[in-house]
Amino acid sequence: MRAGRLRVVGLGPGAPEWITTEASEALATATDLVGYGPYLARLTERPGQHRHASDNRQELERARFALELATSGRNVAVVSGGDPGIFAMAAAVMEAIETGESAWRELDIAVVPGITAMQAAAARIGAPLGHDFCAISLSDNLKDWSIIEKRLRLASEADFVIALYNPASKARPERIGDVFVFLRTHKSAATPVIFARAVGRADERLTVTKLGDADPLLADMATLIIIGSSETRPIERPGGAQPFIYTPRGYGARA
Amino acid sequence: MRAGRLRVVGLGPGAPEWITTEASEALATATDLVGYGPYLARLTERPGQHRHASDNRQELERARFALELATSGRNVAVVSGGDPGIFAMAAAVMEAIETGESAWRELDIAVVPGITAMQAAAARIGAPLGHDFCAISLSDNLKDWSIIEKRLRLASEADFVIALYNPASKARPERIGDVFVFLRTHKSAATPVIFARAVGRADERLTVTKLGDADPLLADMATLIIIGSSETRPIERPGGAQPFIYTPRGYGARA
Repeated sequence: MRAGRLRVVGLGPGAPEWITTEASEALATATDLVGYGPYLARLTERPGQHRHASDNRQELERARFALELATSGRNVAVVSGGDPGIFAMAAAVMEAIETGESAWRELDIAVVPGITAMQAAAARIGAPLGHDFCAISLSDNLKDWSIIEKRLRLASEADFVIALYNPASKARPERIGDVFVFLRTHKSAATPVIFARAVGRADERLTVTKLGDADPLLADMATLIIIGSSETRPIERPGGAQPFIYTPRGYGARA
Repeated sequence: MRAGRLRVVGLGPGAPEWITTEASEALATATDLVGYGPYLARLTERPGQHRHASDNRQELERARFALELATSGRNVAVVSGGDPGIFAMAAAVMEAIETGESAWRELDIAVVPGITAMQAAAARIGAPLGHDFCAISLSDNLKDWSIIEKRLRLASEADFVIALYNPASKARPERIGDVFVFLRTHKSAATPVIFARAVGRADERLTVTKLGDADPLLADMATLIIIGSSETRPIERPGGAQPFIYTPRGYGARA
């Protein structure tokens, strides 16, 4: 094993109270932090620790740079939003290793998990992920629409709760509108839909609506969307409190 | 809003370093802890704090008891393994509220998310959840086999990575064997399969195999199973190190 170390660290969705002890320690002991600028900006500055900020689009280049740094003997933390393992930096680091220098395979590399956006959104609203679910990224540059449509159709037939990541990219903002149009042909218009924007941050905004009324303009790049199964439903609360939305643990005859 | 408070708190999969700051604070400030005995046993004893341990099967009764305690003015933490929102206590609490006393809807209730087993397993092994995935519980008392089979078939057609929770219950230990037999008719025998048992605990055991060789006896009640998509693959490492398993971010022509 070489001297350098690389940790792919999940910061969670934004609020500092959602960071784990393991992630805090990995950040504190790193000599170098590598990541998207706004994620680095969330972290306390430490004397002697180097920061390498990059653009959000450059995931593979960022991963390669971090692996080179670690190979030179540094203790590197690649900083990721949410959970690095779920539509974030861990897969980019693995891709870089698979296609990169053989020395990178000898490094001490580990992933530090974090709370991902769908968990934060679910916690805010009740328990919409309480039964079988799927998570689909709508990222426009990594997958064709035909694949997304096929998965949405099969996920609807399976009656999974559906969590949608990256619903509105700059390159293809209309895609989420297409998704709602498509899903209305497969699911009831009364299906609960949750728009969870920037959960855990100062500009957090939660909107609960129905599939028949879902407005694509509520989704931006910081939004996570949860679309219920046929069993997902609200629990009304008195005094103007937001209803809980939840999916029961049992299904059909066992519900 | 009534005086009592209820928090449904995720401890993560076992290791104390995977607990979030929010969860630690909710546990420290609770007057009463309610939960499955072994989860309570993980926590530091605090003077004056009451513990109410119960059997693992009694989720709904436990939720009702916690809601009654909170209604009497206590600050209650319902302790859950993993993430309460994913196949754990949050949905049970919601079910109890939906069918219970109207006063319960007026309580200050919130869910505190945690790292769930599939995230811990994925972090240990690379990035198997790096692309679209689904999570299915095989719990035998909440869902018929016909529903499970339908979801496994559609998840295979969608080429999701599949995370299986509760693969081997006491009541129906043979179910996971049926799952492997079924999936072999829908997916390649070379598909990577990860058995992640008790991740983060002293008796942690990770086994990486292929669908064609997957042994149902490797799954017990503490095991989480991840079954790859057609793109999930190993990255070999020198010196006897465990290969990484990962799923690329892109798919098909975009991979």
